[in-house]
Amino acid sequence: MNNNQMELNEEFLKIKDLEKTTDKICEFIKDEISNKFQKKGAIVGLSGGVDSAVTMALCAKSLGYEQILGLIMPEKESSSSSQLLAKEVAKKFNVETKIIDITQILESFGVYDIKEQIVKEKFPKFNIECKYRVIVPPKSKNIVGIPFLEILDENNERHKLKISSSDFLTLTAATSIKHRVRMTMLYFHAEKNNFSVVGTTNKSEYQQGYFVKYGDGGSDIEPLVNLYKSQIYQLGEFLKVPNQILSKEASPDVWSFSTTDEEFFYSVPYQIVDLILYARENKLSIKDIQKISDLSKEDIESLVKIQNIKQVKSQHMREIPHSWMPDFT
Amino acid sequence: MNNNQMELNEEFLKIKDLEKTTDKICEFIKDEISNKFQKKGAIVGLSGGVDSAVTMALCAKSLGYEQILGLIMPEKESSSSSQLLAKEVAKKFNVETKIIDITQILESFGVYDIKEQIVKEKFPKFNIECKYRVIVPPKSKNIVGIPFLEILDENNERHKLKISSSDFLTLTAATSIKHRVRMTMLYFHAEKNNFSVVGTTNKSEYQQGYFVKYGDGGSDIEPLVNLYKSQIYQLGEFLKVPNQILSKEASPDVWSFSTTDEEFFYSVPYQIVDLILYARENKLSIKDIQKISDLSKEDIESLVKIQNIKQVKSQHMREIPHSWMPDFT
Repeated sequence: MNNNQMELNEEFLKIKDLEKTTDKICEFIKDEISNKFQKKGAIVGLSGGVDSAVTMALCAKSLGYEQILGLIMPEKESSSSSQLLAKEVAKKFNVETKIIDITQILESFGVYDIKEQIVKEKFPKFNIECKYRVIVPPKSKNIVGIPFLEILDENNERHKLKISSSDFLTLTAATSIKHRVRMTMLYFHAEKNNFSVVGTTNKSEYQQGYFVKYGDGGSDIEPLVNLYKSQIYQLGEFLKVPNQILSKEASPDVWSFSTTDEEFFYSVPYQIVDLILYARENKLSIKDIQKISDLSKEDIESLVKIQNIKQVKSQHMREIPHSWMPDFT
Repeated sequence: MNNNQMELNEEFLKIKDLEKTTDKICEFIKDEISNKFQKKGAIVGLSGGVDSAVTMALCAKSLGYEQILGLIMPEKESSSSSQLLAKEVAKKFNVETKIIDITQILESFGVYDIKEQIVKEKFPKFNIECKYRVIVPPKSKNIVGIPFLEILDENNERHKLKISSSDFLTLTAATSIKHRVRMTMLYFHAEKNNFSVVGTTNKSEYQQGYFVKYGDGGSDIEPLVNLYKSQIYQLGEFLKVPNQILSKEASPDVWSFSTTDEEFFYSVPYQIVDLILYARENKLSIKDIQKISDLSKEDIESLVKIQNIKQVKSQHMREIPHSWMPDFT
């Protein structure tokens, strides 16, 4: 499959009436915050990405900008452009923000030490100028890709090494701390101000478990969780989210060596993720999918299979904790 | 109502077959961890209280002690006896533990500074030798109690002051950070080891929202969440949980001036909490309740009312985040 040459008719995911959709989401936010939660306002974590920008735009439109607080939580490994873009969003929608650098908190959790120890073991020449990331490249035949640790050295050269499943688990577990610390900070400011936490997860992430349980998945309401990533972009354009945000590639922004969502998790562009998710949910045949894309039969079958596995594996992330029910009364 | 003189026939909450109940819970844990989550083992946060002790006993019985990790996470404001009791539990059930002092993490979140600032403002003579806590005493007529800040000074004397709702929110928001940091630490070690996080919430806490959302409420499975606190004690005795744990009063252990669950949240002994919860769920009449307790009609009506309010207010804590559902397809 050649992503660059891929042609896709995205009509099927077009939101027909953007104004009406925006109004309905705003009504939902207003009703939840004011009536269901009986809170004075809303707090949103601003990452500099399109999802949090759209969420912020909708909250400001729904509740009024005075009822909103935006939290920008950079750390030493996050991209400096993320912070600038997050500030841009706050300025655009006229909302108050707090910038809270969480580096020291992550240090006291040992996040950087844990990661650097593994990186140094694999790359003894690693120094603090090097950037690193974990990627899971797709395998065309097998379902599960092998995880790699990739280094960008001081000469801008890449070095790649396979890592063990144990190192992979440790590196991703340390990275999840970043998301959970941000959730904790959002709730501190929410509870202090009697606000609700508004989450920013979209459907494409949610259905496949591309979020951290009790991290970025930990919120009070999720206005975008039933909208595909493609639809978030449509809302972003309609709501006049700054152009730099709409045009940049989506990224988790948790590795010092910058990594896109496609490289880290999806393996394919988000348009393809959306297409397969949509096709699966709407029971489109392979022929139907081929009518709106140039994917081969083999590609489609493999993508559907991968998406099924991701959905099943992440099922518990979309549920409350499993409980035991006594059979006595 | 005089709690000390209260007589209560607890027969209605007696677990008839403790062995069978234990076996069923163990089956549940085994099936969840091994089959549903497909994990290698379980991790439990040990607080030194009866709920985590019983949870640990059940996990060790179900999975074998080699598959279990106990995390003990003290901080400078927690009681030193909690740590000793937690170690006692681990020794008793022969499970590996890690002791992780989270004081530094809480410091970097600003938890102590936030609290001390408010305390010093109210009690200018406050020094680091003083202990402090927040309590919400019951009101006999009104539903909502007024929160107090209470100080235990270096001469062991108590001083009490009413606090504003804003100070109350800030103090409790800062305290919730403790629970969320512990959850984050539990998940780090769980994910690293390919384990599941086993929660320790009981029914009496769960139904009234006496837990922190995405804090101690953040887990993969909850074996005790449909069992009343009284029943946890019965299981504790059957499973031979150390006696000191069964005989001490339950406490959240988050304030330097030690506070029981009754003082901080319930206002009445847990036996009464259980009774009212049971009566409400099983639609017992006031006369039925009076048959098994010596509560007055007025006390019963007021307790039922308070429990209803707590249940409604905490409803969102027992749900996944509320989401907006598009009405286009």
